[in-house]
Formats: sequence, C-alpha cells, structure tokens
Amino acid sequence: MIDTLSKTVVKTQKVRLYTEAEPFHFDSGASIGPIDVAFETYGELNSERTNCILVCHALTGSAHAGFFNSEDDKIPGWWDGIIGPGKALDTAKYFVVCSNILSGCYGTTGPATMNPVTMREYGTSFPVTTIRDMVRVQKRLLDWLGVERLQLVIGGSMGGMQVLEWAVMYPDFVERAVPVATGASHTAWGIGLNEVARQAVFNDPAYMNGNYYASGQPSRGLALARMIAMISYRSPESFTMRFQRERMRDGGGIGYFDLKNIFQVESYLHYQGVKLVERFDANTYVYITRAMDLHDVARGRGKLGDVMSSIRAKTLCVGISSDVLYPAVEQRGLAELIPGASYAEIQSIHGHDAFLIEFEQMNRLLISFIERTEEREK
Amino acid sequence: MIDTLSKTVVKTQKVRLYTEAEPFHFDSGASIGPIDVAFETYGELNSERTNCILVCHALTGSAHAGFFNSEDDKIPGWWDGIIGPGKALDTAKYFVVCSNILSGCYGTTGPATMNPVTMREYGTSFPVTTIRDMVRVQKRLLDWLGVERLQLVIGGSMGGMQVLEWAVMYPDFVERAVPVATGASHTAWGIGLNEVARQAVFNDPAYMNGNYYASGQPSRGLALARMIAMISYRSPESFTMRFQRERMRDGGGIGYFDLKNIFQVESYLHYQGVKLVERFDANTYVYITRAMDLHDVARGRGKLGDVMSSIRAKTLCVGISSDVLYPAVEQRGLAELIPGASYAEIQSIHGHDAFLIEFEQMNRLLISFIERTEEREK
Repeated sequence: MIDTLSKTVVKTQKVRLYTEAEPFHFDSGASIGPIDVAFETYGELNSERTNCILVCHALTGSAHAGFFNSEDDKIPGWWDGIIGPGKALDTAKYFVVCSNILSGCYGTTGPATMNPVTMREYGTSFPVTTIRDMVRVQKRLLDWLGVERLQLVIGGSMGGMQVLEWAVMYPDFVERAVPVATGASHTAWGIGLNEVARQAVFNDPAYMNGNYYASGQPSRGLALARMIAMISYRSPESFTMRFQRERMRDGGGIGYFDLKNIFQVESYLHYQGVKLVERFDANTYVYITRAMDLHDVARGRGKLGDVMSSIRAKTLCVGISSDVLYPAVEQRGLAELIPGASYAEIQSIHGHDAFLIEFEQMNRLLISFIERTEEREK
Repeated sequence: MIDTLSKTVVKTQKVRLYTEAEPFHFDSGASIGPIDVAFETYGELNSERTNCILVCHALTGSAHAGFFNSEDDKIPGWWDGIIGPGKALDTAKYFVVCSNILSGCYGTTGPATMNPVTMREYGTSFPVTTIRDMVRVQKRLLDWLGVERLQLVIGGSMGGMQVLEWAVMYPDFVERAVPVATGASHTAWGIGLNEVARQAVFNDPAYMNGNYYASGQPSRGLALARMIAMISYRSPESFTMRFQRERMRDGGGIGYFDLKNIFQVESYLHYQGVKLVERFDANTYVYITRAMDLHDVARGRGKLGDVMSSIRAKTLCVGISSDVLYPAVEQRGLAELIPGASYAEIQSIHGHDAFLIEFEQMNRLLISFIERTEEREK
C-alpha cells in the first residue's frame, strides 16, 4: 500500500433540525417537520468557533463538496478543486461546511421525502421553497454545529443567491462573502429558461402531477430539462471548440442524412440529460428552479440599493467572462451596490459552468481576497 | 370610402413545379413529385426580366412577406416594413418574390402534404431536406416566372443561409446578396438548441412518430419547442426591459407563492408557444430545424475560404448588436470571407429577432447598400 494513493474519505452526515413538534416555517406560511439536513464538514472547528467556511451548492449540487465519500470513488466532491489543505478553502485552517439545500434530493428533506402524516412522498404538496428558507435552515445547522461566526460564505449560481441572502439576513454573523456568477434577483431571461425546463418535466406523461414515486421518474422530461439548461451553462465558443460540426459516425454521402448519424453536440446533450435522471429528483428540479425565480434580495425589504448597502461582510463578487446566464457585467454591478466590495473575473470560454471548472483561477482569486481582507484587519 | 385606408391586397399563388413524371431530386438522393410551391410577388417584372428581388424566409415564415392577403387582415406580411413603394425593396422599381420553402407548411409541399402514392400525409417519410434543396426549388420558381437575373437576394436567420447558398450555387445569376444574422454553417450551439426543440416535440405522446394528422398536433411539444426558441431569439436585456420581474396578478404576501401568479415572462412564452401551434406543423418544424443543422456551405465543396471566395455577388452582411444566436462578430467574419463584401450592424436590444422589428434601420442600410453598389456600376 502506497500511502500517497490513499484518499481522504469524508462521509455525508445527517441531522434532524426540526421536528413535528417544532416544525420549520417556510416563507410561504406553510410549516412542516421533521426536517433532516444532510451535510459534510472538512477540517476542525477552532476553540473560538470562528473559523467556519460555509459552501452553498448550485441547482443540482449536493453536500458532497470536497474529498471522497469512499475509497472506491473515482471522482471527488464537486468543489474539491478549491477545498483541502493548501487550497483556497484550506481545511488545515478552516472548518468547511456544506449542506444539501432544503427541498433538495441528496439527504435533506424535500419533495421526495416521505410525509410522516400521509406516509407517502410529499411530491407537490411540499411547500414552495425560497432561497431565504434554505439559508434559515443552513443557519440552524451552523448553530447546531456550534459555529459562532462565518469567516466566509461562498457559492456560485444558485449558491451565490444563498450567499447574498446570508450577507443580508445575518450581517453580524458573516465576515466575508463571495457570490459567484449570480444575481441580486433572478432575471426575466433566467425565469424564462427555468420555465421551459419545468414545462419539459410537466409535459412528460410520467410526471403525473408529481406523484411518480411508485411508477418511476419522468425520465424524458427531466432529461430534456437538463439538456436545455446545459446549453445555457456553457458558451457558444466552448461548444464550437469542443464539438465543431463533428458527427458521431460520419458515413459521408448518404450517411450524411442518416438520422442516427447525429452531431456530437446532440449526443453530448442527450448524455448529460440521461446522467441527471439517474441522480436527481424531478420534483426537486421543479421546486429549486422556482426558488431561483423567486429570488430577489429586495423582496419585502425596500429598495435594492438600500438592501445591498446594509451588507457588512467583506465581499468579493466573481464574474465569468463568457457567462451568458449571469453576465460578468452584472457581477460588476453587484460589487458596486455592496459597500467596499471588490470584483474579480474568471477568464474562461466555458460559460457559466466555469466556476466548477477553472479551479486554478478560483484558488488564486480567493486566496488573494482572503489575504487582502486579513491584512486589512491587522 | 376614403382611398388612403384601402389596403393593397396580394394573394398567395401556387404553382406545380415538379410532377410525378419529373420529380424533384433531394440532396439526400430521394426524389418526390409532384411538388407545389406557394409564392407571392409584388411589383412588375421589367421587360429585360432583370429587376427581381428574392426574399427568403426564416424558420416559421411564409411566402406572405409584404402587403395584405385580404382587406380584412389587420397585420401585413412579415417583412412589409421593408417591402413596398419607397421602401428598401421598392415595388415601384423591383419585382419582389417570396416563396414558402420546400418542406414548409404554408402551401409548398412538405411533410403535411398528402403523398399521392399512399394517399396519406408524408409525415416522417418526407425526404430529409437541405437549404440547398430549398434554393434549387426557388431557382426553378424564378425560371418559371421568367426571371433572368436577381438584383438582390435577401433573408435573415435561415433565410440568410439560403442567401449564402444562392450566392455560391448561382454566382452568375445573383447581382447582390444580403445575408442577415446567419452563418456559413450552423454552430454547435445552434444545433444544440434545435435538438432540444425537436426533443420537446418528440417527447409529446401526441407526436406518434409524426403520424398525428388524423389525431391532431403534438400541441404541448410544439409549444415548448417554440418557447425554447423564443428565448434564444430575444436578448436578456430585452426580456428585462419588457418584463422585469412583474407578475400576471400580484396578490402580495401569500399570493407571492400562488402558482397561478406567474411571472409575465412565463405568460409571454406560453402565449408564443400556443400561437405557433395554431399556425405551424410540427413535422415541418422538425424538418426545417434539421435543414439548418445540416447547413454548411463548405460541405462537399472544399475549404470554406475557397467556397466563400467564389461568391461574385456584391454582398452586404448584416449583424445585430444583441444577437446571441448568430453573434454580430460572426457576421463581420462572414463579410471578411466574401470578396468585396461590406458589413452593417443593426443596433438593437431585441436580439436575433431584430431583423423582424428594426425596419427603419433595415431600410436605411439596404437603401444605402443598393445606391452604393449601383453607383459602382456606372
């Protein structure tokens, strides 16, 4: 056994944070209990309980952000590239926490969870969920873990929406905030894209108004939703670079019109669709895209400028040069609304997904931000 | 009766250009007959038969490009803004022709046409169609009309693909070419978008492999395909300007979570979807999007640069500043490949659809191009 080949294994844990007697109250007015939350932690909480970093995941993410869940795993957590000893989210120094969001399907209570009252899955009887609901559950988890202060809260896309809500909802608790490729409210274009993805799910007869748990997922609908989303997560340039107009099997001549002789980009999208169906719940997809649509830090709080001005966390807004979904110019605009915030840009042709790909740049800009803001404190 | 209120009425005509005895031969090797073509003409062909302008329509367009089909029509043809006396495509001077494309559903033979052999609609037994097929049928129509030279061929989006093929296939016939918001070949991103739209149609159980003519359209699937496409035809900025985060009916409080209380952008997309279902055939949608995917002026002709160099028409490439589907930078690139071509840009926030909206700019840049190239001749 060669020691350097061994993997750091971190298991996903689960905790019951709300019960039937003490349920969780949603923004919508609904309340349910019990609510369980799945989470992972990396590194150790210091004795002052102030070295915590919270990682917020995006639409189809999970609590498994770093390291491996078993020795057999071939692929580490989704943000392992920036989590670990010596990396930006340095586990030698910080206590890093990531939890599956409320309404999720990776261990935290959501539409696929059994309703203890009816003894059937919630399905669409699960309460409409907001980003604020997700953040309040995360706060409860950190309280339960004994965390007294967040050194940093970070997330991309819908994770970034949570970051902004954290900074607004708990200004005294959050030392630093890093929203990546996100927005203060979801745009009309973003809502449109989410709605067509949901319609793809609803149009699948297997969806049956969300009561499909006995009969099986609306596979074709969910796959199509994912295919639509994947186009918006990448950039025209990255598709051109990767696929050009290459075929799966180019027979030339008549083969050119063989319907099975599809373009590689089509095959890629189909593959991405099928892969999501294997690992994700369709109702969660519907609920979480709606949570994104409903995201608006100004909702019920007054003017956007005033709300953003109330943020006290040291903030770094991160944009991606080729992001068509959350354009870099909007990230720069966010930074201008937050007192003392700075802006950094990931240079990439990979579009919105670059925050899950460009780890070298992510590490560099995060380490620089943390060092800079630590020096300011001295 | 006040004379100024009367409308110029132009009826769509129809002609049989191929017969069972003399069928049309597709690029694919298949051949069918008869083939009828629906078309409209505006203005008069001059005695030299050299004053023709051909207008090529886009994906869901028709031969009805200008004027009115009846006194009762409230809306004129789709490009009426630039067709007519004194407009860029000046019917006092030019003989303007627009025909419904091969494989279309507005009068020209396509998948919804009855196959005279089986006495059933072709459905998916209709031959795979290419842009080149469409152009060869258009050439036949112009021959039948007695046209000896095209003063100008113009079209946007898939219409622009036809324009480029015209310039390459008939270099001695085309005096001027104006491809608008298009490409020399369809991009991987464009293919991806078309494929998700087709999948939306295929996923609808009512599609039944294209044999739905007795039972009715795959309405939900075709509507969803249109919704997906509409997002790419517009721009994030135009959606923001038009819809913001406005609701259809904002009840505030609990109403905020009322699922019927949807965002205006969602309502808009649904409306666009339903509207297309009323007027368009799902199989035609599938066939024509595939024709776009297959579009590649270099296919079977050698290097792209050499093919584009062979164009002899005076060419104006037109880009749209906010086009995310066919970016302006690609239109500029097209102009660089075509000998002597110039480039003009429509400044608009409306995205790809701007060529169907910004008529004032279209008129200005077209009139300038025609005058400039006429002077060069003197």
